[in-house]
Amino acid sequence: MPDVPKRGFSIDEFIRRLAAIQSQMSAQGIGALLLTTEHDIFYFSGFLSQFWQSPTRPWYVIIPDQGRPIAVIPEIGVNAMSSEFIQDIRSWPAPHPEDDGISLLTDALLEVLSRSVSSVIGINKGSETHIRMPLNDFERLGNNLSQARPNFKMIDATPAIRAVRMIKSESEIDKIRYVAQCVSNVFDRLFLFSDIGMTDAQLFRTFTTECLSAGVDTVSYLVGGAGRHGYDDIISPPSGRRLQDADVLIFDTGCTFDGYFCDFDRNYGFGSVNDAAKRAYQAVWQATEAGLKMARPGNTCAQVFSTMHAVLEKAGAIGETVGRYGHGLGIQLTEPPSFAAWEHTVLREGMVMTLEPGMFYRPGKMIVHEENIVIRKAGPELLSRRAPPELPIKLS
Amino acid sequence: MPDVPKRGFSIDEFIRRLAAIQSQMSAQGIGALLLTTEHDIFYFSGFLSQFWQSPTRPWYVIIPDQGRPIAVIPEIGVNAMSSEFIQDIRSWPAPHPEDDGISLLTDALLEVLSRSVSSVIGINKGSETHIRMPLNDFERLGNNLSQARPNFKMIDATPAIRAVRMIKSESEIDKIRYVAQCVSNVFDRLFLFSDIGMTDAQLFRTFTTECLSAGVDTVSYLVGGAGRHGYDDIISPPSGRRLQDADVLIFDTGCTFDGYFCDFDRNYGFGSVNDAAKRAYQAVWQATEAGLKMARPGNTCAQVFSTMHAVLEKAGAIGETVGRYGHGLGIQLTEPPSFAAWEHTVLREGMVMTLEPGMFYRPGKMIVHEENIVIRKAGPELLSRRAPPELPIKLS
Repeated sequence: MPDVPKRGFSIDEFIRRLAAIQSQMSAQGIGALLLTTEHDIFYFSGFLSQFWQSPTRPWYVIIPDQGRPIAVIPEIGVNAMSSEFIQDIRSWPAPHPEDDGISLLTDALLEVLSRSVSSVIGINKGSETHIRMPLNDFERLGNNLSQARPNFKMIDATPAIRAVRMIKSESEIDKIRYVAQCVSNVFDRLFLFSDIGMTDAQLFRTFTTECLSAGVDTVSYLVGGAGRHGYDDIISPPSGRRLQDADVLIFDTGCTFDGYFCDFDRNYGFGSVNDAAKRAYQAVWQATEAGLKMARPGNTCAQVFSTMHAVLEKAGAIGETVGRYGHGLGIQLTEPPSFAAWEHTVLREGMVMTLEPGMFYRPGKMIVHEENIVIRKAGPELLSRRAPPELPIKLS
Repeated sequence: MPDVPKRGFSIDEFIRRLAAIQSQMSAQGIGALLLTTEHDIFYFSGFLSQFWQSPTRPWYVIIPDQGRPIAVIPEIGVNAMSSEFIQDIRSWPAPHPEDDGISLLTDALLEVLSRSVSSVIGINKGSETHIRMPLNDFERLGNNLSQARPNFKMIDATPAIRAVRMIKSESEIDKIRYVAQCVSNVFDRLFLFSDIGMTDAQLFRTFTTECLSAGVDTVSYLVGGAGRHGYDDIISPPSGRRLQDADVLIFDTGCTFDGYFCDFDRNYGFGSVNDAAKRAYQAVWQATEAGLKMARPGNTCAQVFSTMHAVLEKAGAIGETVGRYGHGLGIQLTEPPSFAAWEHTVLREGMVMTLEPGMFYRPGKMIVHEENIVIRKAGPELLSRRAPPELPIKLS
């Protein structure tokens, strides 16, 4: 088992993140940044809880343009939110349908703006984001603020938050590497616990247990499936289908350690898999090789995409449905940026990414491959253990 | 292991759900209902996937006031969404930042409204809901619709959706009962795999593995902790603390089967737990007994709450932080309604609920108890196996 990284972060890490976002806020003229989602709040406060799965209570964190964050949260969370870094916590007995924190939140935002030269509140409005609060409450908040401060404006802070979160610290990278190595260990021994005749539900359950034994905290994301010489769907839960001769099995998993994800897949053949499937596997592996060569500071995501795309085209790809060949990775299973034709973000040191080329080599027959990397000055460092260049096959 | 229910639902179940929501829509004058979240879409279409964990792509389902739902979704999901029930699927190669499905969605909504006498679109705006799409896209959609159909209105459909989802069918209840029984089996044998000296991380990992072996699909939610004679926090992840003499350990878990949750907890004492903690346990158990007597059709949630509250007050409760004594349960870990003083919803047959009384018996020392029930004509049916009336204690 790989060495287990320390849980949590030093206060320095949060102070650095705060300085980074406040610098972005200053550039955009934002006086207060309002965070509503699990991942933004975890990133800027350290608050980690599975309690987010209950949709009942809203949680808010405000980043002022100067000074420490202010948490406006349900009473049930005060203890878990308190830390050396987060000390200004305002709470109410949630759920409280008449006023579920909106008065408290209004007052806190007005207080922050009253100390700022700016009347601008930043909030996530862009791609890959949403606002986790009831729309009625969001409208009420807007009305409250307009009444108290008629010149206030709300603008899209997605670019600011994205810019900060995209660059990972060494402590963050350590956690992702650890969980990717744990899962690599499980993938390496997959044939020891999988066989023709097992149902996909049994395979999923066994794989999950193996990941937990290997040292991950949670198997938050596990999809996959099998099909003769390839599959046509990589996002479905188990159906009860039994593994059979000539199947290609894929598992794609996002396991976590201390709130940080790995996200990669592996393919396995059983019995008499045909040559077309084997060649498609080689093609996605080679596309990843090409991607690895291009994934270095200064190149754009679109360049990495085109390089991988050329390899797949040449190998006879007739299409894909995923819409991109990889993405950012960290406290969410998928984060910006994307390896896609339309993504002109420039790669920088410290970005943690997946390379995920996939192709249909004939209708209904797909092979997808995925690795996790961090961009270093001299090129990528692999966080997952590189898959074998040929499709591993278990002969019956 | 309890008998495993059939996965999925018959098409009749979806037709019944559709008729139920269309009846609510008709009463509210809604011409088209727009769904954006994992759980609403699962409920009305049967689409179940862990892929929702990626925030990258929006997914939309429209319920017209007549006829079958229309799915407007990323290409990657077409195969998994297709079913006997869902046949009208419109897709685009997502992610696509310039137009991530908004033109398609606009056209589909306009098409539905053009067949309706109503110009009203329903969307979730109320408590315990949010809109899972970028706010920029939501604004763009509103502008598109206003231009094409100036008289269109968007109203809060939360009460309509809530009314339908709150009443569970027997097929839904079977899944919840199954997963609650699996977890009851694990709770019954907890002392066999837990001991003083183990870290909470080890306990969490072992508990998860035991649940998977017991037959659940996922251990989606697992929180808990231990403290001397009681705990002060029930929402935190493991901290690395070791179980010690006089600890009360709580596990609170939401495991799933086929997309359906159980949600209940159990308490365990180790060694020399004091009498105050034992009495607090008896009090929350007795409060649950009182709740069970009141949880029948015709009573309001507030009545059940008051009955439980009286028991806890009498037992010397000095407060709680959860904000309620239980809630609805189904495809989400927590669903409406709440057992709370402000909740005047009347209990009806088929509602699946948790009874979750909790109390601080002194500052920093809390005991919380929870059971899962379904409301039947003659009173509640327990879905979890009733906890013992006295705190179980493992003597060293």
